[in-house]
Amino acid sequence: MRDPLSAKIKTIEPSGIRKFFDLVSEMKDAISLGVGEPDFDTPWNIREEGIYSLEQGRTFYTSNAGLKKLRKEIAFYLERRFHLKYDYEKEIIITVGGSEGIDAAFRAMLDPGDEVLIPQPSFVSYEPCVVLADGVPVIIELKEEDEFKLKKQQILEKITDKTKILVLPFPNNPTGAVMTREDLQDIVDVIIEKDLYVLSDEIYSELTYGRQHISIAEFPGMAERTILINGFSKSYAMTGWRLGYACGPKRILEQMLKIHQFAIMCAPTTSQYAAIEALRSGDDDIERMRTAYDQRRNFLMKAFRDMGLQCFEPFGAFYVFPCIKEFGMASEEFANRLLQEEKVAVVPGTAFGACGEGFLRISYAYSIEDLKEALSRLEAFIKRHRKKSGRLC
Amino acid sequence: MRDPLSAKIKTIEPSGIRKFFDLVSEMKDAISLGVGEPDFDTPWNIREEGIYSLEQGRTFYTSNAGLKKLRKEIAFYLERRFHLKYDYEKEIIITVGGSEGIDAAFRAMLDPGDEVLIPQPSFVSYEPCVVLADGVPVIIELKEEDEFKLKKQQILEKITDKTKILVLPFPNNPTGAVMTREDLQDIVDVIIEKDLYVLSDEIYSELTYGRQHISIAEFPGMAERTILINGFSKSYAMTGWRLGYACGPKRILEQMLKIHQFAIMCAPTTSQYAAIEALRSGDDDIERMRTAYDQRRNFLMKAFRDMGLQCFEPFGAFYVFPCIKEFGMASEEFANRLLQEEKVAVVPGTAFGACGEGFLRISYAYSIEDLKEALSRLEAFIKRHRKKSGRLC
Repeated sequence: MRDPLSAKIKTIEPSGIRKFFDLVSEMKDAISLGVGEPDFDTPWNIREEGIYSLEQGRTFYTSNAGLKKLRKEIAFYLERRFHLKYDYEKEIIITVGGSEGIDAAFRAMLDPGDEVLIPQPSFVSYEPCVVLADGVPVIIELKEEDEFKLKKQQILEKITDKTKILVLPFPNNPTGAVMTREDLQDIVDVIIEKDLYVLSDEIYSELTYGRQHISIAEFPGMAERTILINGFSKSYAMTGWRLGYACGPKRILEQMLKIHQFAIMCAPTTSQYAAIEALRSGDDDIERMRTAYDQRRNFLMKAFRDMGLQCFEPFGAFYVFPCIKEFGMASEEFANRLLQEEKVAVVPGTAFGACGEGFLRISYAYSIEDLKEALSRLEAFIKRHRKKSGRLC
Repeated sequence: MRDPLSAKIKTIEPSGIRKFFDLVSEMKDAISLGVGEPDFDTPWNIREEGIYSLEQGRTFYTSNAGLKKLRKEIAFYLERRFHLKYDYEKEIIITVGGSEGIDAAFRAMLDPGDEVLIPQPSFVSYEPCVVLADGVPVIIELKEEDEFKLKKQQILEKITDKTKILVLPFPNNPTGAVMTREDLQDIVDVIIEKDLYVLSDEIYSELTYGRQHISIAEFPGMAERTILINGFSKSYAMTGWRLGYACGPKRILEQMLKIHQFAIMCAPTTSQYAAIEALRSGDDDIERMRTAYDQRRNFLMKAFRDMGLQCFEPFGAFYVFPCIKEFGMASEEFANRLLQEEKVAVVPGTAFGACGEGFLRISYAYSIEDLKEALSRLEAFIKRHRKKSGRLC
């Protein structure tokens, strides 16, 4: 029998997170600080709206782009929260989580050989989705000394005449880095001058601490060259509902809609009804969860300081990204040994790009109790393995 | 600003069904016999299970491949109903409807230039999904005189050394045609001899009348070269839940899972819990809906005979596909005029491929009352437009 597989698919590695959690799932008593999702159940009023829609028998397809009512609410929300203006009829489509929007954008926009700038460490899907769309991922290595922000100079160094799209993954998974207005202003000029499009993945836009998220689409000249990706998974603790959205210029969105129409049809109907409720009355829920994340973030940062573990202070998402270079182990080895010796699961930084080497991603979307227990195990591990030579980070 | 779009995406036309229904949605009092989904709400016990899972706070991601329990139930079901054996751990993944599975299969299997045989008239997604995956669609025109079945000779005529996959869309949307065991036996030899893979879209497998659906994967030597697509939308009236599955050889499924993992993450969690209930106790619901569809099917066929409208008798899905060649109008013109003059919406056969010219797709997933009213309007239209020259079909 002939080989059933395409040459391309064989070049793509499965997610490093997944590989690691296959190990974890087989180990009893392990505490996981690994998964990238809120530990909260979806707020009750949102679930109730989903339940109500099922009771009412709203079990049919919606239009391909999604319920008009939901798209209207998204347009209101984006204007209210981030000063963005989108036409709900032509510039917003409801997707299966943020991921589907990312994938559809690359599929709609990339010709073979087009280059996409991907700052790393970052979410695991960008690189394979670019490859699947026949694009060429060009990695920009974010640096701890830059607080893992993207710098204008880094774009200039990697840009070629094949560069078409810049991925902007902030607030960042896994580092927790955010880009301030000034940081964004600094890169906007080069984006416009070099005529790049931006895929701005703002899925963690509601989870920032002590500062408000700024969308690059807000800057003059940027809305027409930005595909904004957002969704309900992180802000409203709705991961299992699989609901996100993509916004952008009509010209691009109508092409993404074709892909969505043929490959997906529409996002899940129950989730769409529930999401309307989320946007209408979910602000307090967001605030409650954000406050809890912030407490945990502070708890972790203090614990790291106390145990002398270097960690850049993150102002977004729900991850910390401590440096473990002083231990002379690769990230994967560190994570494996931590799991074997102390039964604590964290994700090696390398799961998010080669430049994540020397770091770990630790999620704080877990209860303070779990965090305390995990941290005391981590501390024991660190004490045992700390080299006398001292800090290398 | 440079062109944001890929050359490929611009070659793909939006679905002809969608174009037509944009017209319909603006017209009041129109009766639509157009949409391809059951008119039944999802059975209550299935919805109840979805509600229960929301009450319990099961709002988190599942594993990428889907809930183990659900995959086990699918494996039981496929063996019980269609004599198929799949390993739920390695050979089944839960997808967002059947469509996502179709798209992922082409993306995992096609190299640029690989040819895919697509019998038409058929579901609108196959052709664009092949193009998006850099494959070359090669259309096989199914013929009314063959009862819209696929014939061995038709495969032989279109096969080249680039042919890799045959799409097998039975029970068929839009014609309602089914392939019997003998029909399948006749093509199995050539599939194996020519070393083809098969994408068998069996989404209507529960909706056959007076005969049991046979899966091609049941034939010796075929399971290892078949990607089976199925789901919950049609059998259980669960379109809005967006839940399907793909089954096939581990070697292919593990590659499809990578695409699913990066582009989708997992199918909606609530839908997965509800689907377990559907498989465990949905047989009676299927039977009840199938009986209703069959009554409507008989009603339509008799009405067509009475008004002298030629129509091949369909034994699957919930569509009839009458021939309207005698009226000397193209399908699209006929459908447009029927909508304008009598406010009845049906889909031009050409929405399912150029060879659908001269036919209409009429769905009978509507109440007998709606069907009666629509048929009497159709009859008035036909009488007005019937040419004296008589039948051309």
